[in-house]
Amino acid sequence: MPSNGRRLDLDGFVPYRLSVLTNRVSNAIARIYSERFGLTIPEWRVMAVLGQASGLSASDVARRTEMDKVQVSRAVANLVRGRRVQKQSDSTDGRVTRLSLTARGRAIYDDIVPHALELEEQFLAALAPHERATFHRLIGKLSEQEIGSSAISTGRP
Amino acid sequence: MPSNGRRLDLDGFVPYRLSVLTNRVSNAIARIYSERFGLTIPEWRVMAVLGQASGLSASDVARRTEMDKVQVSRAVANLVRGRRVQKQSDSTDGRVTRLSLTARGRAIYDDIVPHALELEEQFLAALAPHERATFHRLIGKLSEQEIGSSAISTGRP
Repeated sequence: MPSNGRRLDLDGFVPYRLSVLTNRVSNAIARIYSERFGLTIPEWRVMAVLGQASGLSASDVARRTEMDKVQVSRAVANLVRGRRVQKQSDSTDGRVTRLSLTARGRAIYDDIVPHALELEEQFLAALAPHERATFHRLIGKLSEQEIGSSAISTGRP
Repeated sequence: MPSNGRRLDLDGFVPYRLSVLTNRVSNAIARIYSERFGLTIPEWRVMAVLGQASGLSASDVARRTEMDKVQVSRAVANLVRGRRVQKQSDSTDGRVTRLSLTARGRAIYDDIVPHALELEEQFLAALAPHERATFHRLIGKLSEQEIGSSAISTGRP
């Protein structure tokens, strides 16, 4: 595609606005668990997923969170080292490693959750109840949208 | 705060939903510039900001994007090494380093922008025009919301 010198107006560019908003919220929540438990954002995301759905593989976690696989592996390795997450071979398929929170990981998770919910509440206080419902609905629609056709990702002819 | 064993229902937890959505969009756009120019997501974010507002410092970039300072410094260092971004001392305050795209960086930026806009368009096709306007408005409200009071971030008594 030839350059036409168009600039990105970032204030109106949805991917950018979403990333800034996500970073703000994630950073606010991270202040709770980074100070108290030394967790990074990717580490907490892995714990949050395993807290809800135990027994996932690292690939499952990456798929659900849309995180980078390398980022997930690194986070899992740190969490295992800190005895917050444990690995177990799948009973029927030994090649698959299943992850779960340890008792220690679960205690940390239980400690963080109420604070995370409180911060979400502070954040959503910006919206009236009907706006919250709309926001959820719009996120749902956007989450189902296919993006990145092969026509684009192959780039130049 | 005592643990009450509440679980996070991630499908309804806005910070999580936002992070998954942001990662999806960012990853889709990243496929364009990572394959063609070897750029990482933080590197492209820095370039996108400098493409619009030349002469910012690294701290300015971190503030605007809500990115981690370490992440920004690392991205800037790589971009400078690849001659995509240049540093210049501020003419009135020599302690401040101002960043801008080089001609090479600008050419890459000009190449990526139309693709990024096309992907945004694909993504937003999920929403009707009035829903897009609503989405922007709700993001705007949420972006202005204060989150993370000192009461929470100090944690335990």
